[in-house]
Amino acid sequence: MYFKSLFLQKTSQIMHFSYFNGQVLLVDQTALGIKDLAILRGYGLFDYFRTYNGRPFQWDLYWKRFQNSAASLLLTIPLPKDEIYAIVLELIKKQGGGDCAIRFLLTGGYAEDSINASEPNFVILTEDIHHVSEATYLAGISVLSYAYVRDLPHVKSIDYKHLIMAQPALKNANAQDIMYHVNGDVSELSRSNVFMVKGQKLYTPKHNILNGITRQVVIELARTDFEIIETDISLAELLIADEIFTTSSTKKILAITQIDQHKIGSGIMGPKTSLLLQKFNDLIQNW
Amino acid sequence: MYFKSLFLQKTSQIMHFSYFNGQVLLVDQTALGIKDLAILRGYGLFDYFRTYNGRPFQWDLYWKRFQNSAASLLLTIPLPKDEIYAIVLELIKKQGGGDCAIRFLLTGGYAEDSINASEPNFVILTEDIHHVSEATYLAGISVLSYAYVRDLPHVKSIDYKHLIMAQPALKNANAQDIMYHVNGDVSELSRSNVFMVKGQKLYTPKHNILNGITRQVVIELARTDFEIIETDISLAELLIADEIFTTSSTKKILAITQIDQHKIGSGIMGPKTSLLLQKFNDLIQNW
Repeated sequence: MYFKSLFLQKTSQIMHFSYFNGQVLLVDQTALGIKDLAILRGYGLFDYFRTYNGRPFQWDLYWKRFQNSAASLLLTIPLPKDEIYAIVLELIKKQGGGDCAIRFLLTGGYAEDSINASEPNFVILTEDIHHVSEATYLAGISVLSYAYVRDLPHVKSIDYKHLIMAQPALKNANAQDIMYHVNGDVSELSRSNVFMVKGQKLYTPKHNILNGITRQVVIELARTDFEIIETDISLAELLIADEIFTTSSTKKILAITQIDQHKIGSGIMGPKTSLLLQKFNDLIQNW
Repeated sequence: MYFKSLFLQKTSQIMHFSYFNGQVLLVDQTALGIKDLAILRGYGLFDYFRTYNGRPFQWDLYWKRFQNSAASLLLTIPLPKDEIYAIVLELIKKQGGGDCAIRFLLTGGYAEDSINASEPNFVILTEDIHHVSEATYLAGISVLSYAYVRDLPHVKSIDYKHLIMAQPALKNANAQDIMYHVNGDVSELSRSNVFMVKGQKLYTPKHNILNGITRQVVIELARTDFEIIETDISLAELLIADEIFTTSSTKKILAITQIDQHKIGSGIMGPKTSLLLQKFNDLIQNW
């Protein structure tokens, strides 16, 4: 079955591969029929992880989260864990074995009546890793506060419409991301978790968040040096923190040095953030 | 450019056609590249209307709403109104000229970095009309109350994940739709507006709603017989209404005769709802 389209997708210069319902394809040739519920109803979920030294980082944790998202959206993952892992390894190998990012997409599936589908569509994509530069790690990033809580925040659904809508405001303010808050409490950035350093205490929001894998890893890494407190954190508290940082698969541990017009701490990456980043880098070096 | 896929989309028995970025295709062959922001980020909008006597119903109003949605999501419609209307007429003719439904889809477009796209993808689909039976008009429908407000309710975005998630509960309760409410106030059904009859007064929610075209038409039709009041309506008030009905492009004016376990009014379509449905049917007969 071939789908026609006039427009080429613009993807990376590097050749990337996909797996789609049993077949290995080029990402540029991978398409979803227009009657899929992801397209008609925004009904789909994803997950996203990367390799270090050619090996998927924390596969067990990412798989578990992917399973949880699928269960929440009542979607059945069509293959068992070990078969999917074998496909992931095949895709990594196929594009040369260097480090890459992997995106899973599990969609609602094709629905004749735009509501009821019989089986999900499952796609795996390899992607470029968006590296954060050394200069950015040192300087930290600037974020804009944004009053919003993600719908079903514990599910990694594909719903990121506010991030896309916020792009002009971010470019205008020369900021890198939006920081979600509701009723005064901060939850997360658009695609990453938030931590706050105060003395030897490390705080991170507990509610309305996606359970980040890097968040989990960082909590474990930090235990020897910090008291870890998962709780509600107000925007006002964040502004007077010693240090703030965000965690994600691609950002690792990245200082947040400005919120709206407010400088945070020293205005550059602080010593505690630097210490944790060093620990994280040690971990991945030997992954 | 051809996209490969192993799975056929299951669509109608009748042949349906699409327009996609300048080309007329079969709906079954229409696909969106996997890097589109609708698939990766749930970023897209749609509109949906139907023909009566082979002619698009209230085209000017639907077009205006489509424009408003696109403006809210910062997406540019790639063709002017008259050219799109000509394509719509061509698609209707191509499938025999009988009445059909038309779906517009405007998506975020292809984004190499999963965030920034250069131009939207625009798709037009023809679809079967989901007719409501005479028996259903007489009996009315049963709905389940559901605590939720659509994200960006004034925008016809593709975000209907709660409707899809609610399907098992609806089937289990033998109910036909969910009724959104927040802080006690009802906003709308998943894809249609709500009206309440009390004596000669006709109430309809004012906030957190999509501006339904059928809603607008019904308000105009009802003016001679009712005092129209657009206001907040609590779930408790609805339960003791004389009559309730919902309005949409496919449902026209359809009685709601049960909310959760509560029967509304007489438990079948009431006389005021019937009167308005008759007026609406007169309008479309001569469209």
